[in-house]
Amino acid sequence: MSMELELVPAGLAHALEDLLLVDHHVHGATSHDLSRTAFEDLLGESDRPVPDWMTRFDSQLGFAVLRHCAPVLGLEPFCPPEEYLARRARIGAKEVNRLLLGACGVGHFLVETGYRAEELLGPSGMAQASGAPADEIVRLEMVAEQLAGSGCAAADFAERFAEALWERTRSARGLKTVAAYRCGLDFDPARPTATEVAEAAGRWFEEGGRLRDPVLVRHLIWTGIDRGLPLQFHIGYGDPDVDLRRSDPLLLRGLIELAEPTGVPLLLLHCYPFHRNAGYLAQAYPTVFFDVGLAVNHAGARAAALLAESLEVAPFAKILYSSDAWGPAELHYLGALLWRRGMARVLGEFVAEEEWSVPQAVRVATMIGAENARRVYGLGG
Amino acid sequence: MSMELELVPAGLAHALEDLLLVDHHVHGATSHDLSRTAFEDLLGESDRPVPDWMTRFDSQLGFAVLRHCAPVLGLEPFCPPEEYLARRARIGAKEVNRLLLGACGVGHFLVETGYRAEELLGPSGMAQASGAPADEIVRLEMVAEQLAGSGCAAADFAERFAEALWERTRSARGLKTVAAYRCGLDFDPARPTATEVAEAAGRWFEEGGRLRDPVLVRHLIWTGIDRGLPLQFHIGYGDPDVDLRRSDPLLLRGLIELAEPTGVPLLLLHCYPFHRNAGYLAQAYPTVFFDVGLAVNHAGARAAALLAESLEVAPFAKILYSSDAWGPAELHYLGALLWRRGMARVLGEFVAEEEWSVPQAVRVATMIGAENARRVYGLGG
Amino acid sequence: MSMELELVPAGLAHALEDLLLVDHHVHGATSHDLSRTAFEDLLGESDRPVPDWMTRFDSQLGFAVLRHCAPVLGLEPFCPPEEYLARRARIGAKEVNRLLLGACGVGHFLVETGYRAEELLGPSGMAQASGAPADEIVRLEMVAEQLAGSGCAAADFAERFAEALWERTRSARGLKTVAAYRCGLDFDPARPTATEVAEAAGRWFEEGGRLRDPVLVRHLIWTGIDRGLPLQFHIGYGDPDVDLRRSDPLLLRGLIELAEPTGVPLLLLHCYPFHRNAGYLAQAYPTVFFDVGLAVNHAGARAAALLAESLEVAPFAKILYSSDAWGPAELHYLGALLWRRGMARVLGEFVAEEEWSVPQAVRVATMIGAENARRVYGLGG
Repeated sequence: MSMELELVPAGLAHALEDLLLVDHHVHGATSHDLSRTAFEDLLGESDRPVPDWMTRFDSQLGFAVLRHCAPVLGLEPFCPPEEYLARRARIGAKEVNRLLLGACGVGHFLVETGYRAEELLGPSGMAQASGAPADEIVRLEMVAEQLAGSGCAAADFAERFAEALWERTRSARGLKTVAAYRCGLDFDPARPTATEVAEAAGRWFEEGGRLRDPVLVRHLIWTGIDRGLPLQFHIGYGDPDVDLRRSDPLLLRGLIELAEPTGVPLLLLHCYPFHRNAGYLAQAYPTVFFDVGLAVNHAGARAAALLAESLEVAPFAKILYSSDAWGPAELHYLGALLWRRGMARVLGEFVAEEEWSVPQAVRVATMIGAENARRVYGLGG
Repeated sequence: MSMELELVPAGLAHALEDLLLVDHHVHGATSHDLSRTAFEDLLGESDRPVPDWMTRFDSQLGFAVLRHCAPVLGLEPFCPPEEYLARRARIGAKEVNRLLLGACGVGHFLVETGYRAEELLGPSGMAQASGAPADEIVRLEMVAEQLAGSGCAAADFAERFAEALWERTRSARGLKTVAAYRCGLDFDPARPTATEVAEAAGRWFEEGGRLRDPVLVRHLIWTGIDRGLPLQFHIGYGDPDVDLRRSDPLLLRGLIELAEPTGVPLLLLHCYPFHRNAGYLAQAYPTVFFDVGLAVNHAGARAAALLAESLEVAPFAKILYSSDAWGPAELHYLGALLWRRGMARVLGEFVAEEEWSVPQAVRVATMIGAENARRVYGLGG
Repeated sequence: MSMELELVPAGLAHALEDLLLVDHHVHGATSHDLSRTAFEDLLGESDRPVPDWMTRFDSQLGFAVLRHCAPVLGLEPFCPPEEYLARRARIGAKEVNRLLLGACGVGHFLVETGYRAEELLGPSGMAQASGAPADEIVRLEMVAEQLAGSGCAAADFAERFAEALWERTRSARGLKTVAAYRCGLDFDPARPTATEVAEAAGRWFEEGGRLRDPVLVRHLIWTGIDRGLPLQFHIGYGDPDVDLRRSDPLLLRGLIELAEPTGVPLLLLHCYPFHRNAGYLAQAYPTVFFDVGLAVNHAGARAAALLAESLEVAPFAKILYSSDAWGPAELHYLGALLWRRGMARVLGEFVAEEEWSVPQAVRVATMIGAENARRVYGLGG
């Protein structure tokens, strides 16, 4: 995609600028100041320490921080990393969050709280820092692990989990599963029997550790479907803990078909590099939706290319926006900014090539950026 | 791909405009008038009803209809769907077909008749409506199912199927298999034994239903290879009945190698999102060809990007054009139009970047659009 | 990617022109004159004879030869293949090599000598013909097969192989494995036991033929890791001998994690069409690097698109340049030329779109083209 932004039709450019996004899958911004090491660690999905012969500032995401976040903090674009970090430290995390979250142009955050949430702003903190409403997405595995930690007989696990999930999600907007991390998506899609669940719970309680047993993961998913809230799936790109080969969304076909009669929306998150497969599923099944969050951030100058690849066979009502930001508010800001710039380029090209009209482009941007999520999660507005 | 069409070299633009395509895999146009529901149902590959909170006009294919087909029916581009459907209803299916099929610029249709053919124009109807010759491609599974329906002893199935196939394909130009739908492409590639076939036929006749047994599917394919006509394979993108993961063309490697000594051309159809894998196979094996039909239609403004991805490692003599249109003549028209526009953009960029000459671009367009298919199917002309 | 080269910022264009590349995975240029048949056979990865109804000059690689190599031999760009071959024959292989290798702008060749090396220039011949230093990369499987050919007891194989490898690699810069060709990458990643190795060696010595046993392939890899030199893996695109489906780099995850504590660099070569998967691994694991060699050559006018896809999630310190040229010096020349032109287009667009600065683009080109390889292989300079 080669269009320079000044060539984007004005009507489309303004519409994208003014559009209040719904970030339907995001985590909190960090409320702590970050050392250079801590900041760099978060400029990538790898959980490995950054080797001393490289810096993660030398990446698409690193370049995007220096290009786009530096001006928000009052610096020149493309300043050196040292200057950026020094300014960031001087301003302090709270003000960094206020500046960057305030500049996102997000009208509603759906905050997933299931991963190291104690280090991050919660939904109310996000609302306060950004000035936009924020609701919660609850991670199934976290509810199960808290239940296990609180002491629960294996035979009672199924019932107690359903109760805990209901209790924990009174005001939540949706659920999330990290089955891709825990056992891969190539699990038997059928709902496990009560006996299977009790046995698997017994094994887990004995062995301890994270919930990884595919029987239990399936049980969580099916209990989540019973709960009836939109259900998000981690797909594709993530930290090395995921076996990427086993996180292809096509592996979910059996589950999608079994769950289809319930009508529960299934939302495939991130999806890179399997986003075309996700688009295929969103086209085939009425209950399936997807986004290309996370990868848009991490691909920086290549964000437009990924967005273009997400605009192929899926109907436009089935595509959503998310940042999947976690930690530095740079990620919340860049997610929204790169999505706007990328969509302007991609849709602007469709218009320049006389394939789309400007009103069509504006409508699709509005659907993907906000309306689809408002409908799926019942956000009103 | 960002080139606007007015920047395409004139020699290439004219050559593409004048090129009479061979649509080597297409179904008939519908001879019935279509309700809005029926029309929308055909603007996607999903067999699920369109949910009431969306319309399939909000898709790349829907936008392409409003952009490119509206003017053929005497409307402004980008008119509202309601206006388009009203005009379509007023004109009537027969005239719609005459207008759209007549505007395709297709010089030869190879019409696959194996799927709900009773609702569609047959080869002679297509020839009449379009003014271009039309020949038949016969679906292996349909011949077998008709044979089963007519009463046949399991022990005689192999012999009777070979006879029926020969009889049914006296004037056909090629064969087609939907093994990807019936059992996935991860089948044992070896020719099954006579005993295996008789046993499998016995099981099938007892159970009834569609032919799905991998032994029988393999038997059909091998009998098709014996028949000696070019053999088309459904690959990749299709309706939810296909398990996309099991329709990767790389799964056919064993069969390709076993069938290679026969010299029978194997044509991989559609292939999205596995078109690069198909290009690899076309490069590796002299008997393998491929196209990116169907997806070009459904990707609309992204057609050029898919065509570009098909022009990587495969020799240009191994790539064909098809629309895979089924039903509304809009699909026959858009297949040809989007291919022409997409090729103009992609090859025009190669020329603008001084990587290709205009004569090279014209020659490759002619090979892919017509010559390769004429050679493979022995069409003359 | 649509940028014409004259639009590339001058600072970037000059930096790319002047950059002395490290070709970290290349084979020798052929020292023989080549018939048309022999030349065409090398314009593709297929080992099948070219059918008489086509020519491999009708491919991206063929077009690139006529476009870019013809001028180096004193011909007009886009000359007919016959004219090109006639000139080539008249000049003679030695002068062809001098002209094309001399024009590569390569500052250091790492020459893999494990495949039909007797037909090709070795490292010293490459250094002489090009004027640049050339070092050796040793193929593990070749060392094992030479050992087997020289007579070796199965019980001694493990020890003798370690000795032979050490001896053979005294001055080598790295190792290479073709596990993808021999058994696919879906092998058990664990180091096999001494007993397993001795038994597998016994079977191999009895049966003869190429080394294909997964136990032995794994043993070679682990012995290679013990040796401590950077270890290259053939990934993806290659001749039909590779089952592409079993050469997906994601299959190496288990091995990568087991080998991670050793710190030995693992270099994923070529990777097409799995280069995004390779980028993911390079992002996730500190020891993993990758390139898009071979495919850049074979994709010709599409080289920029592939390079762009390699610049997504991987940090820039983890991406290398290679040509994977084998035989005609056209491949050595085109590898470097298409990489330079492609990077100019891709990085030039990032700059034109105001996502990157010119100094950033120059630095990334320098890292990928030379610096990363110099650091990984300890080349100095």
